[in-house]
Amino acid sequence: MKIVIAPDSFKGSLSAVEASSVIDKGIKKALPSAETVLVPVADGGEGTMDSLVAATNGHKVEVAVKGPLQEKVIAEYGVLGDKETCVIEMASASGLILVDKDKRNPLVTTTFGTGELIKRALDDGYKKFILAIGGSATNDGGAGMLQALGMKLLDKKGESIGFGGGELDRIASINDEQFDSRISSCTFLIASDVQNPFIGLNGASHVFGPQKGATPEMVEQLDRNLANWADVIEKKTSIRLHDEPGAGAAGGIGGAFQAFFPAKMQRGIDIVIQYTGFEGKLEGASCVFTGEGQCDYQTASGKTPMGVAEAAKKYDIPVFVLSGSIGKGIEELYQYGITSVHSLVNGPMSLDEAMSKSHDLLESAAERVMRTFIA
Amino acid sequence: MKIVIAPDSFKGSLSAVEASSVIDKGIKKALPSAETVLVPVADGGEGTMDSLVAATNGHKVEVAVKGPLQEKVIAEYGVLGDKETCVIEMASASGLILVDKDKRNPLVTTTFGTGELIKRALDDGYKKFILAIGGSATNDGGAGMLQALGMKLLDKKGESIGFGGGELDRIASINDEQFDSRISSCTFLIASDVQNPFIGLNGASHVFGPQKGATPEMVEQLDRNLANWADVIEKKTSIRLHDEPGAGAAGGIGGAFQAFFPAKMQRGIDIVIQYTGFEGKLEGASCVFTGEGQCDYQTASGKTPMGVAEAAKKYDIPVFVLSGSIGKGIEELYQYGITSVHSLVNGPMSLDEAMSKSHDLLESAAERVMRTFIA
Repeated sequence: MKIVIAPDSFKGSLSAVEASSVIDKGIKKALPSAETVLVPVADGGEGTMDSLVAATNGHKVEVAVKGPLQEKVIAEYGVLGDKETCVIEMASASGLILVDKDKRNPLVTTTFGTGELIKRALDDGYKKFILAIGGSATNDGGAGMLQALGMKLLDKKGESIGFGGGELDRIASINDEQFDSRISSCTFLIASDVQNPFIGLNGASHVFGPQKGATPEMVEQLDRNLANWADVIEKKTSIRLHDEPGAGAAGGIGGAFQAFFPAKMQRGIDIVIQYTGFEGKLEGASCVFTGEGQCDYQTASGKTPMGVAEAAKKYDIPVFVLSGSIGKGIEELYQYGITSVHSLVNGPMSLDEAMSKSHDLLESAAERVMRTFIA
Repeated sequence: MKIVIAPDSFKGSLSAVEASSVIDKGIKKALPSAETVLVPVADGGEGTMDSLVAATNGHKVEVAVKGPLQEKVIAEYGVLGDKETCVIEMASASGLILVDKDKRNPLVTTTFGTGELIKRALDDGYKKFILAIGGSATNDGGAGMLQALGMKLLDKKGESIGFGGGELDRIASINDEQFDSRISSCTFLIASDVQNPFIGLNGASHVFGPQKGATPEMVEQLDRNLANWADVIEKKTSIRLHDEPGAGAAGGIGGAFQAFFPAKMQRGIDIVIQYTGFEGKLEGASCVFTGEGQCDYQTASGKTPMGVAEAAKKYDIPVFVLSGSIGKGIEELYQYGITSVHSLVNGPMSLDEAMSKSHDLLESAAERVMRTFIA
C-alpha cells in the first residue's frame, strides 16, 4: 500500500521534515509493509524553502547578509532539483525570528538582506525565483531590498535615505540608474496569501505592524510613511500601490515587487504543490497524511492541508489531517477533499505538555489513524 | 452498513446510555445511512444494572432501604427482559456515592440496604440474581446484608451487634435459624474483578478502606475486625475466607457471598457481554464503537472495551475505542481485538474543559473515526 506523507511544520515543535518522518514511523507501526513517500510541505510561510529543496533533491547556499537590524546574519537561498529555480525565504534574511522581542521595531528594521540574497543568487546565475515572504520583521515597503539591488532612494536634497520604515517619509525621488539590470530578464513568483493593500486601515502597517513590534503611534507613522513611498513610486512608475491587493504583504515588500520586478503573486500552497511535483507523487497512493499545528475553518483559506486535499481530491484519494489542535468549523473542510481531522492530543493536557510530547503524540496519532483506515 | 455502539460510561460526564446516543449522532453525521445498534455496556461497576436492563428491555423496581448510614434511601433493582433474572447494584443501596465526603467512615457504614434489596426481590419471586458490587461505601464484611436477611450476629452475651465494620470485633457467634431460607434455592452471580483476600495487607481494609474514608488507624482496626469475623465464619461454616481470593471484594461482602450464598464470582464485563446478548447483536456488523473515560494498559484487565473487543474478535469485526484520555501501553490492547484508540480531546485543554465539552467532543470523535473507517 502506497501512502503519501505531506505535513506542514507543527510550529514551535516539529519541522515539516521532522513531522513527515515521525508520521512515517507511526504508519509503519500500523502497517510495516507500507510504501511511504515523504513530501514535507509548506504553505508559503516558514519551511517553504526546505520543503521545495527536499522534495526536489535540491540544495541550499549560505550567504552572509545584513539582518533586519543591519547585524550580520547567515541566510540561505535554495536551489531546486532542476538547478534553475531559486527559492528565497524572506524570513531567512529579514525575519521576525531574527530579532529579539524587545528589539522589534519596524521603524528601523530593513529588508536589505533580502535584496542581498537576491543579488547573490543573480550573481550565481539564477533567473527563476520563488520568493516566500512570510514572517518578515519589516514594514519598509521593500525599500531596503531595492537599496541592496542598487536603487537610490533620495531625499529632497538628493541624499540617500537610511534604513527602516521610519525613513520612508524622507523619500522624494527614486534613481534607478544602478538598479540591477538583470532583474528585468528574470521571473519572480511571489508566494503570498495576503490580499491587503499597501496603506490604510487594511494596509500593511495597521494589520501587520503590531505583531512586528509597532505601537499604535508607530503604526500611524508607518502608514503615513508608506503613503509617501507609494506616492513617489506612482510618480516614478505610474503604478499605484496604495489600494492594490497584495501590495501590503510582508510590510509592503509585495508592493515593491509589483512596481519594480517582473513578478507574479500566487497562493503559497499552490506554488509548493506545483514545484514539489505533488500530483505526480500521488499516483497509486491509497491515502495521504497531512497535518499542521492548528486546524480550523481558516485552514480552508489556503493552508497546507487544504492544498494537499485539493490535489488529492482530483484522484479521489482520502486525506487524513493530523493536528495539534482542532478548532471550529472543520466540517467545511470535508467538501474540499479532507476526509477526517485528528488531534495529536490524547487526553487533557496543557499546550506546553502537548508541545513537549509532540513527537510521540504525532507518531501515535498516525498509527491510530492508519489502523482505523486499514481495518 | 451495520454498526454496533457499545460504550461504557465516561465517568463524571456521560452515562453509557448518553454516550451511545452521542456516538450514534457522530456516526450518522459521517454516514447518514448507517444502521446502528446501541448497546450501553458496563464492566460490573456503576451502570451495570442500567446496561443490562436497557439491552434486554427489562425494567426497574424502586425499593426504600437503609442507606450506608442507616438513612432512608430509594434504591433500585433491575429485572432483565427475561423477567426471571434480577440485577442488583450494591452501590444503589450501599454506595460511596450516597455518603457525603466528610461522613465517609467504614467503621459505621453498613451493607444492610443491599440485604434489604435482595429480600425485596426474593419477596417479588426472583430466584436468579446478578450482583454488581462495585462502588460500595462499606467495609463490614457483608455483615449488614446478612443481618437484613435474618442472620443473627451475636456478641459474647448473645446480644445482636450493631452496624458497620467497627462492630465486627464483637461477633462471637452466628445464629442462622432465621436466615432467609429462600436463598439456598437461588443462584447468585457476583460480578467482580477483584481478587483480593478478606484480610491482610492485600485485604479489603488495607486496599480499599482508605478510598472509603478510613484513616490508617481505622484500616488496622477494620482489618482486625474482619479477621475476627472470618474466624467466626470459619467456626460456623468451615469456610476459611481469610486468604480466599475475591473474599475481600467490596469491603468483604465478597466473602459473605462465598460463605453463605450459592454464589459464583465472574468478571463483570463477561457477565454483561453474556446477559446483554452482545455476540448476537454483532451479527453482520461492519465495526464496533466502544469507549470509556480513560483507556490504558489497565483496560486489558477486564474493562468494557476489552470485553467488547474479545467478543468482536471472534467475528473479525474491527473495534474502535473512544476515550477521554489515552494512557500508557495501549499497544497491548491490539492483540485482543482493539483496532485503534482515539481520544475525545481535540487540542490542549484542562480536564475540566474536556469534561464540560464531553458531549460535543465525543460526537466529533465518533464522526472522524467513522469518516476514516469508510474512506
